[in-house]
Amino acid sequence: MPQKPHPVFPHRHLLGIEGLSRIDIVTLLDMAEEAIEVSRQVEKKRATLRGRTQVNLFYESSTRTQASFEIAGKRLGADVMNMSVANSSEKKGETLLDTAMTLNAMRPDILVVRHARAGAVHLLARKVDCAVVNAGDGAHEHPTQALLDALTIRRHKGRIEGLTVAICGDVLHSRVARSNIILLSALGARLRAVGPSTLAPDSLSRLGVEVFHDMRSGLAGADIVMMLRLQRERMNGAFVPSSREYFHFFGLDEEKLAYAAPDALVMHPGPMNRGVEIDSSVADGARSLIRDQVEMGVAVRMAVLEALAQHLPNV
Amino acid sequence: MPQKPHPVFPHRHLLGIEGLSRIDIVTLLDMAEEAIEVSRQVEKKRATLRGRTQVNLFYESSTRTQASFEIAGKRLGADVMNMSVANSSEKKGETLLDTAMTLNAMRPDILVVRHARAGAVHLLARKVDCAVVNAGDGAHEHPTQALLDALTIRRHKGRIEGLTVAICGDVLHSRVARSNIILLSALGARLRAVGPSTLAPDSLSRLGVEVFHDMRSGLAGADIVMMLRLQRERMNGAFVPSSREYFHFFGLDEEKLAYAAPDALVMHPGPMNRGVEIDSSVADGARSLIRDQVEMGVAVRMAVLEALAQHLPNV
Amino acid sequence: MPQKPHPVFPHRHLLGIEGLSRIDIVTLLDMAEEAIEVSRQVEKKRATLRGRTQVNLFYESSTRTQASFEIAGKRLGADVMNMSVANSSEKKGETLLDTAMTLNAMRPDILVVRHARAGAVHLLARKVDCAVVNAGDGAHEHPTQALLDALTIRRHKGRIEGLTVAICGDVLHSRVARSNIILLSALGARLRAVGPSTLAPDSLSRLGVEVFHDMRSGLAGADIVMMLRLQRERMNGAFVPSSREYFHFFGLDEEKLAYAAPDALVMHPGPMNRGVEIDSSVADGARSLIRDQVEMGVAVRMAVLEALAQHLPNV
Repeated sequence: MPQKPHPVFPHRHLLGIEGLSRIDIVTLLDMAEEAIEVSRQVEKKRATLRGRTQVNLFYESSTRTQASFEIAGKRLGADVMNMSVANSSEKKGETLLDTAMTLNAMRPDILVVRHARAGAVHLLARKVDCAVVNAGDGAHEHPTQALLDALTIRRHKGRIEGLTVAICGDVLHSRVARSNIILLSALGARLRAVGPSTLAPDSLSRLGVEVFHDMRSGLAGADIVMMLRLQRERMNGAFVPSSREYFHFFGLDEEKLAYAAPDALVMHPGPMNRGVEIDSSVADGARSLIRDQVEMGVAVRMAVLEALAQHLPNV
Repeated sequence: MPQKPHPVFPHRHLLGIEGLSRIDIVTLLDMAEEAIEVSRQVEKKRATLRGRTQVNLFYESSTRTQASFEIAGKRLGADVMNMSVANSSEKKGETLLDTAMTLNAMRPDILVVRHARAGAVHLLARKVDCAVVNAGDGAHEHPTQALLDALTIRRHKGRIEGLTVAICGDVLHSRVARSNIILLSALGARLRAVGPSTLAPDSLSRLGVEVFHDMRSGLAGADIVMMLRLQRERMNGAFVPSSREYFHFFGLDEEKLAYAAPDALVMHPGPMNRGVEIDSSVADGARSLIRDQVEMGVAVRMAVLEALAQHLPNV
Repeated sequence: MPQKPHPVFPHRHLLGIEGLSRIDIVTLLDMAEEAIEVSRQVEKKRATLRGRTQVNLFYESSTRTQASFEIAGKRLGADVMNMSVANSSEKKGETLLDTAMTLNAMRPDILVVRHARAGAVHLLARKVDCAVVNAGDGAHEHPTQALLDALTIRRHKGRIEGLTVAICGDVLHSRVARSNIILLSALGARLRAVGPSTLAPDSLSRLGVEVFHDMRSGLAGADIVMMLRLQRERMNGAFVPSSREYFHFFGLDEEKLAYAAPDALVMHPGPMNRGVEIDSSVADGARSLIRDQVEMGVAVRMAVLEALAQHLPNV
């Protein structure tokens, strides 16, 4: 398969969307477009990362993100090693940095890290020699999720600029929301945060989003309805409504979706709580992009790995 | 290594032995014979599945089955990814189908699934694009176990037709027993179920097996004595005898084995409860095929993966 | 990359340092020197173990050792399979030997085993056909740790003969200490054990080490200060001091280190309990070899795998 020459991505790590230029983002999306085709081949294999070592260091468990990074790395030819919390030394009292420095001494090329603490991945990136990818750090950032969401939107709408995107649910605690707001704003979308005031407080307007506490007004005319997972585990101390009550007011069903634009599309980063934040008829309906998001996830991660590989120190 | 052209296996999935023709079964066994040699080479590697992605999705833990599928896939050149329950989203409340559809969107070629619920694997196969292999679903089927048992028997007895096979122990709750009964009957063996009436009820005769509640009569003249694992975890509500009492009446020892044919062979799918359903002298004795079964397991799984690869959609 | 011909390592397994000759040890260290370079390449890949199957069977969890063996095997081209306790049949009551024999029947080439029981790995090696590497068995041996420590020392000091090595802390329960004492003695170092009498009893002098119960006297003039991890989990019944009290008397800080030779170097097998057995200023200081040890770990394990591969039965 002939490949276009890739533009150079000028960063050693991918720690967040914050700090990326518009061009950086578009470069990754363009590289991802090309990577989509790899996974659609019979032989889903490139040699880009052959002989390279990728370590997935996950302090929080995750089906889809870890699997997506693992598949992305393997399809690029890397040796991929998974280190999950259960098998880690954290139980033995070793610090995150000691674990990272230990792995670093084994000379991996890429370290993909998920951690429950915001900023943990940045801390680590300052210490290691290899490229670091943030696979989600606390309520801070989840850059590959935002990239895959942008890619999904761009492929279905043909553009991002000028679209109205309503991010609905627990916007306050969501790293997915935070990364998406930064990225989609940078690409010219109009952002809305929709949810109860405990989860979508008015203070979010600082990020340049318009805040709504009523679903129907929040969705009115929206081109993209991006639902978030209700993450009870992150809502320390916040008022947590019952699932039934939450669904009544903020769950996305056909009735509420009708307030959005006639060609509005629906997204969810997964895993879904069906009947809580989203109704099955919408999740599985014709306007749902949820499965495309997953496919784009592998492509975006391949693109990120390839982009960072351009900068790997060749010792 | 020159290879004979493989006959075409006409199914997209391997969900059970039920629904396979005699020819389908023999095709898989013949392909497995050839696969045995791969694992006996210095370089245990074929390129059949190069660039293909195999996902092992195990909702029940299993040393041997998961390892066997992983080794089989890797020896065929596939990229193999393990997803065990502990790392899955099931804890986060995601449904089996959502997990499967998520994996499916990552474009795997083969999904190997074990699940505690009978029928879960069939359900899933109707939804995904890739090939699905049932690695055990509840008390329903465990087709690769039956195939490896048949291969082991055929290699040691030269045939299956006309043999008397006594399946002993918890036949009622055993997917191994169920798949074996269907397969071995299809290939012309005479089947017996031997156990206490709680575990080998007379109603099993519906499956065309002869039921015995006494080990010595059940083993009389048998060519193959196939012991089952006593699975206390599956016996909800059933009368569970003490291990000692169980062994006295239904544990296989030299004395009881003497009632079988003089050249009878002994099998067990593992893991064994030594001293409960089988005595160590028999398990480790000259008539035990237990280790051969494990080796045949890798070969059969390679054959199944190769057979299904013939039908993989090339998008 | 041109390679020097390797001397033949005359053992089928690596079960311990005990039983290795001086030449065996030097052979492995020399092979490891060469392996270091592989991990420093862009493409960290050799074909030595291509098509070979390596199984890591870990009955105790371990970040660094398992990761190190996995990376080592993959960089040599092997198919590596991890089997951790959590996924094993041990919970189902299967014995270690049955698990090992089951794996053996899948025809792996190399089995890397960690087990909580001293001698478990030897037992297993007598039963299987493949090469076995001891990755730590109870308080018995941890040969690859001793080899990597020796390699680290040799590279920084230019020799091992004649050096004074003070092993400090829980020498009694440490397989790391035991393997190091045997190896470094064989290569002509002078060994000391330093710790409270409960953890470094006078009886250790049987092993040819000089025993000290005071850190300052124990470190006096030492060329290498090898700290051990305080492993509370292994100290059944022994007097366990508070962390603070322990650090006061036996924790390595700059003040105590000043008693060692002016060019003394500091080692620790990890994971470290900072502030318990070692102060962060020392652990992260200029005289610390702790990160080098980890890098040498991958190299030594590659060397061991390569050495044992020379003897693999080619069926």
